[in-house]
Amino acid sequence: MPELRKDPIIGRWVIISTERGKRPTDFPSMAKTREPRLCPFCPSNEASTPPEVAAVRSDGSDSNESGWTLRVVPNKFPALKIEGDLNREGVGIFDKMNGVGAHEVIIETPDHMKDLVDLEFEDFKNVIRAYRDRILDLNKDPRFKYILVFKNQGEAAGASLEHSHSQLIATPILPKRVMEELSGAKQYYDFKERCVYCDIIRQELNEDVRVIAYNDSFVAVQPFASRFPFETWLMPRFHESAFEKIRGETIEQMVPVFKETLKRLSVALNNPPYNFMIHTAPSDNHFSSEYHWHIEIIPKLVKVAGFEWGTGFYINPTTPEDAANFLKQVEI
Amino acid sequence: MPELRKDPIIGRWVIISTERGKRPTDFPSMAKTREPRLCPFCPSNEASTPPEVAAVRSDGSDSNESGWTLRVVPNKFPALKIEGDLNREGVGIFDKMNGVGAHEVIIETPDHMKDLVDLEFEDFKNVIRAYRDRILDLNKDPRFKYILVFKNQGEAAGASLEHSHSQLIATPILPKRVMEELSGAKQYYDFKERCVYCDIIRQELNEDVRVIAYNDSFVAVQPFASRFPFETWLMPRFHESAFEKIRGETIEQMVPVFKETLKRLSVALNNPPYNFMIHTAPSDNHFSSEYHWHIEIIPKLVKVAGFEWGTGFYINPTTPEDAANFLKQVEI
Repeated sequence: MPELRKDPIIGRWVIISTERGKRPTDFPSMAKTREPRLCPFCPSNEASTPPEVAAVRSDGSDSNESGWTLRVVPNKFPALKIEGDLNREGVGIFDKMNGVGAHEVIIETPDHMKDLVDLEFEDFKNVIRAYRDRILDLNKDPRFKYILVFKNQGEAAGASLEHSHSQLIATPILPKRVMEELSGAKQYYDFKERCVYCDIIRQELNEDVRVIAYNDSFVAVQPFASRFPFETWLMPRFHESAFEKIRGETIEQMVPVFKETLKRLSVALNNPPYNFMIHTAPSDNHFSSEYHWHIEIIPKLVKVAGFEWGTGFYINPTTPEDAANFLKQVEI
Repeated sequence: MPELRKDPIIGRWVIISTERGKRPTDFPSMAKTREPRLCPFCPSNEASTPPEVAAVRSDGSDSNESGWTLRVVPNKFPALKIEGDLNREGVGIFDKMNGVGAHEVIIETPDHMKDLVDLEFEDFKNVIRAYRDRILDLNKDPRFKYILVFKNQGEAAGASLEHSHSQLIATPILPKRVMEELSGAKQYYDFKERCVYCDIIRQELNEDVRVIAYNDSFVAVQPFASRFPFETWLMPRFHESAFEKIRGETIEQMVPVFKETLKRLSVALNNPPYNFMIHTAPSDNHFSSEYHWHIEIIPKLVKVAGFEWGTGFYINPTTPEDAANFLKQVEI
């Protein structure tokens, strides 16, 4: 019998329908064949990107020259532009405004052949630090209401360049998806006087059927109402609303669980295309008792089609319990 | 300058960012190579599907035999199952229920080589009638709160079989996406005492920069805040909340505009994969002054990636005005 499950935060129902017959090994995988020629993110091609806004350069090399281990640059084809005012305007019954915002690229490694999951511990920490520092910097701009850090890995997940990178977009509007989470978490808090994410973490660690990795400070789970096969959430076990308040010692705790999670997904699903998104509280809500930052990782294994577009329901052919079991068993 | 535009119904913002450089001719197209061998939807293979629940058989042929021009059958691998009770249940802080519902397939033509757009006028009308009649029938089941009719055309749009077909799924929950539309339309009505869709239609016909086809009763537009390149909405010009109340003479008016719309999209984008969804009022809200049924058509040309998953914003590289212009100019 298929099962309907409800996401306890935003109230979205999903259909877990295993009888459609997808086993963990049934999904397409992505061969890793790479061609570094002419890559604008490779060392020596620094002039192919707009001038860097940040970099890690332990060798004392100059800006926009080789020698870096991480680089942050404005997106050459930004979805939103940094200059200008919002100029909200009505057009009959419609509303529009200028596309003001920031769109940056975090080049995670100089090595064209490496993925995020392949990075050494220290280099992975630098990526997390770069996410944090860029959010903190952009939070100072009063035009921006939200800053999303995300990663598209692989062409099927929307990446247009194969050199491993993440992105951030600062938007002048609090996004709908973020508002839904904030408002769902607030409703729960108003009723229970507890954070819904803290409650989820407690239950997941007790039940131990959807946890795939953890240590004292972080836990990675297949969420109870997962929309997609192998959807994974990485959460801090302590309550904290904003990712960007993370400090050095917490990054030390975060990276092993994040890296183990990516590694398990990579081995289990043979290097799948994926997206991840850092869900953090908006900059004007940094001390919320209700919201709890986390990272959602979505391997791109199934297609979103008419039913999902029309209803907002998702049909997931793999139970999160089966997925967790499979992920825990793979040898990494 | 990119532009942010707001959907006047559900308040979703989109980023129209043409500087990322997609021209209408830049999108991938889908070659039509077909292989009818062993297709479960072809005539003579009626036994490959569950027994039909409806059919058009002008030759007096028997059920589940050849001779039909349209056939409705239960999905062999249903996402939801028709038998059983809902059995709502809590699991700690989580909620679940049985996956009860209906999942049917409308086989639009016996001809394996034809798409919906290729159907003769009479056959196309039968498809619309089948949608209506199945919804009316399933609305009698008190377990079902909503019935979505949708079509996935082409593998990239989620179709698993190439023989032209649509689907319907009856859900025991009013879907989130439907609730958002109902509630947005109600807010607008409470404020203006007018239907938001009627207002959109008036403005679109006046401005005439996003309309791609129309007659006295129906209009097809590229919506002002379109999420995707060439996203198209087909709407009745008269106020009506429920699609399934449509009568014969209205179907006569609807089919020419629907067919012209699909034809323009097919010629302009070289037979693209697409989804369409019939947005209709829930069965307990059939006389709403606020809601207005319509069909949303989404050609599958771009990938949904991390930014969209994390924010609910969409980045559309083609303005609806450019898309409308292109669609109006193609020779059909």
